[in-house]
Amino acid sequence: MNLLLKELRHNPLLWLLVFVPAVLAGEKLKPDAHTLLFVLSVLAIVPLAALLSHATESVAAKTGDTVGGLLNATLGNLTELVIALAALRAGQYMLVKASIAGAIVTNTLFMLGASFLVGGLTHHLQEYNRVSARVQAGLLFLATVALLIPSAVSQADSAGGAAFTQKLSVGLAVLLIAAYAMGMVFSLKTHPELFASAESGEAGPAPWPVGLALGTLAGVTVLVALVSEVFVESVQQAAVAFGMTPAFVGFIVVALVGGAAEMASAFSGARKNRLDLSVGIALGSASQIALFVAPVLVLLSYAIGPAPMDLRFWPGAVVMVLIATMTASLVTTSGRSAWFVGVLVLMVYLIFAMTLYLLPPRA
Amino acid sequence: MNLLLKELRHNPLLWLLVFVPAVLAGEKLKPDAHTLLFVLSVLAIVPLAALLSHATESVAAKTGDTVGGLLNATLGNLTELVIALAALRAGQYMLVKASIAGAIVTNTLFMLGASFLVGGLTHHLQEYNRVSARVQAGLLFLATVALLIPSAVSQADSAGGAAFTQKLSVGLAVLLIAAYAMGMVFSLKTHPELFASAESGEAGPAPWPVGLALGTLAGVTVLVALVSEVFVESVQQAAVAFGMTPAFVGFIVVALVGGAAEMASAFSGARKNRLDLSVGIALGSASQIALFVAPVLVLLSYAIGPAPMDLRFWPGAVVMVLIATMTASLVTTSGRSAWFVGVLVLMVYLIFAMTLYLLPPRA
Amino acid sequence: MNLLLKELRHNPLLWLLVFVPAVLAGEKLKPDAHTLLFVLSVLAIVPLAALLSHATESVAAKTGDTVGGLLNATLGNLTELVIALAALRAGQYMLVKASIAGAIVTNTLFMLGASFLVGGLTHHLQEYNRVSARVQAGLLFLATVALLIPSAVSQADSAGGAAFTQKLSVGLAVLLIAAYAMGMVFSLKTHPELFASAESGEAGPAPWPVGLALGTLAGVTVLVALVSEVFVESVQQAAVAFGMTPAFVGFIVVALVGGAAEMASAFSGARKNRLDLSVGIALGSASQIALFVAPVLVLLSYAIGPAPMDLRFWPGAVVMVLIATMTASLVTTSGRSAWFVGVLVLMVYLIFAMTLYLLPPRA
Repeated sequence: MNLLLKELRHNPLLWLLVFVPAVLAGEKLKPDAHTLLFVLSVLAIVPLAALLSHATESVAAKTGDTVGGLLNATLGNLTELVIALAALRAGQYMLVKASIAGAIVTNTLFMLGASFLVGGLTHHLQEYNRVSARVQAGLLFLATVALLIPSAVSQADSAGGAAFTQKLSVGLAVLLIAAYAMGMVFSLKTHPELFASAESGEAGPAPWPVGLALGTLAGVTVLVALVSEVFVESVQQAAVAFGMTPAFVGFIVVALVGGAAEMASAFSGARKNRLDLSVGIALGSASQIALFVAPVLVLLSYAIGPAPMDLRFWPGAVVMVLIATMTASLVTTSGRSAWFVGVLVLMVYLIFAMTLYLLPPRA
Repeated sequence: MNLLLKELRHNPLLWLLVFVPAVLAGEKLKPDAHTLLFVLSVLAIVPLAALLSHATESVAAKTGDTVGGLLNATLGNLTELVIALAALRAGQYMLVKASIAGAIVTNTLFMLGASFLVGGLTHHLQEYNRVSARVQAGLLFLATVALLIPSAVSQADSAGGAAFTQKLSVGLAVLLIAAYAMGMVFSLKTHPELFASAESGEAGPAPWPVGLALGTLAGVTVLVALVSEVFVESVQQAAVAFGMTPAFVGFIVVALVGGAAEMASAFSGARKNRLDLSVGIALGSASQIALFVAPVLVLLSYAIGPAPMDLRFWPGAVVMVLIATMTASLVTTSGRSAWFVGVLVLMVYLIFAMTLYLLPPRA
Repeated sequence: MNLLLKELRHNPLLWLLVFVPAVLAGEKLKPDAHTLLFVLSVLAIVPLAALLSHATESVAAKTGDTVGGLLNATLGNLTELVIALAALRAGQYMLVKASIAGAIVTNTLFMLGASFLVGGLTHHLQEYNRVSARVQAGLLFLATVALLIPSAVSQADSAGGAAFTQKLSVGLAVLLIAAYAMGMVFSLKTHPELFASAESGEAGPAPWPVGLALGTLAGVTVLVALVSEVFVESVQQAAVAFGMTPAFVGFIVVALVGGAAEMASAFSGARKNRLDLSVGIALGSASQIALFVAPVLVLLSYAIGPAPMDLRFWPGAVVMVLIATMTASLVTTSGRSAWFVGVLVLMVYLIFAMTLYLLPPRA
């Protein structure tokens, strides 16, 4: 408990934890104040995500390299997964899919671009391990291609009906999870040296004792789940109130909220001239969404959703995800970065955000 | 003849030659047993392709570097060409186009991916000449772009009618063959050093005497032509019997059957840690399909087909070919490979195959 | 004046200046001889563009590195800008957009490809600074992506109406100009060393005195504006007379005419084995069109055009621009070139030109 308090004093982000009881109380007292509940739930998720991330790292640090790497890789996007599950249970498949595509775009463009910019403002030219970045960008590219094939083919060919897309999505989900498992064997067992610098956790604060970490992990996950439910319920009405389109909310707002904790780590790495860390977090997290979170959601939709969910994305989302991963591939092949590279990558993100913000809602 | 028998004992694949008389006899005795004839013709084409490939290499080895390279480059995809010609004469343009696109996809994804996997299972990290791989991947990329432009433009713009596509396809065929001829001047005359390691034929078995080789070349080509006719006639009905869509047959089955001999060489190169050879065969063979086989078929359709054939591909095929060549470009730029790279490339191929298998046939 | 005469004797291109009075006289005397006026205006624009380019370089050489770089970057595509402004005032938005897309395609494919070919015919293998080429190709890729997003999204999603595209285009234009300004800070102030060799102007002829240069700049700009008006008025009817589609005229003819002066510099650099210069001119000029000329035209359409112009391109143009910039990225990453690379890049351009030439005009 002492450690938790010390952490609180150390990390101003955690003061936001006060919004967790606030949002839960608000939900009971004013269930119709959607805009208020939306704002409160966003403010509550951010510190919970930070706690979750730190707890995962602490457990990982104690359990040795392989199990730890496994945990980190599986629980790293736990916040995104829990939010998406809440949307899945509510049957809001458009929101689920938008948040999957948005998380990939936000991680590859915003997290990467802002890391380059933040790093470039204090360092003239930054170099990073381009072999490792290339392996990760390649993995991400192939993962995205795999994820988008049902959309691309069913878009190109209207002959395929809903039954076709559904069967294809399930088969694909199984393949993606298999690829993810093999990727873990690759990065943790057979070729850990290729990923070495990107996974060194030493940049973070001191790890917690396992008991505290496990308890925090369990307790905070429950809290994230509760708050996510409020978030998902209120987000649509709040969006209308703020003049935001549903596409903008799913793509930008959910993705920024869900990834806040990882972004903090990535930016801190960039400032310390450890771009390997930033690139590893950004690309690794995006791959994980494509290879693990997305297929798990497809399979779980059969168990907990009102209807099966497929992997057919809205065409504009396909374009954005493809451009995002191609940009990431292109930008990371050189192993060097300067502030303007960050500006250009952020500009692409800004253009996407502007497009989604202006896009008229579909009838 | 002795040499041929020695070859038979040495190469278990050639035992399949027994299916050549079987399929020709079957065609006479049971012309309606489509499924049986399909299976027999597949089993017969594989060893014939292997013989053809060895005969070509033997002639090439005897005729000196330039003429030999020319022969190798022109006859390397003879099997694919003969099968496609049989389909062309039968007026099955969907099958011809599917087999062109499928051969590019299969060579770049399956042959390359399986080579990386096979090599990676016995070698931790494999390095290969990345300059040569880059030249070949660039050539393949540009060749594919050229091949796909009529589809891309006519897809994007419905204003172009059939007459437009036909004129464009003929003009394009002439340009592609001119580029192919100049590519040969480049790789054999002016810059052979860039392609050096990829074309050293020393990994294969001892060459045959020229007389035997030329005789085999002529005789086996006739046999392939005869068997291909049975194959093309039976493939559609057999596909229905096996529950395969026509797209799957053209893309996957024909391409795997036609390329079996080259795959054997590529995998054997990978196992011997000579990935240069494997990458050269995979990318070179794919370029050849795009730059030589496809335009020759377009031009020949005016002479032997029931109607002119254009180069407009089914939109899903365009997507797959583009992704395949982009994957090949991306994967080969680093000049390094490990087993997981192979797994990812194969996964993309598997996803394509699954999509085509599930795709409902068009009405 | 002596200098101007010396220049005339030195540079045979300038003899074409005789067509400037010819076209202006023709416009007065035979305003309906569209074909004649078209040919005369093309012949008149080429030498004016060369003078404009030399005058800009002369002013730049005298004003020091930063201001000079700024001038060069802003006025480098003055000819294209003036021609597009004439078309904008005439309300010919199809022609304006075709000339924007065409200038990007022509600079990246024709100028780059012909430079590689011209250089490769006299040098076996040419090496150039690949770091600088990569920065420029990356900048161009991201610029193009930004420029094409409205088309891609509105194509993929028909929900967006005209109002949406218009708002998006204006927002985008502001973002692009901001990116362009920051790019100038980057290349001239904070990281000039990355662009060093590409911007050394020493390959050109001796600079003029500032007075002459400024006078030429002002006078020639007026002349280009006058001739451009004749060009824009006559181009449509002349196209019909020559059997050219409007798309072909905008994409190919206008782009080749407008970029003639830069092409002469790029080819001369290639012949002197200074490919850095050629690559810098080709990619830099293409980026400038996307990041500066295009957004300026969008914003100016509110002031001088009959109606606001948006950034939605004809789908076939989107495909061509994307392929062109991807080709440029791919081809320049290696930092090496040989004649066949030029042939392949030119082949892609030739295929585009053939497609546009054959494309039936839209009803």
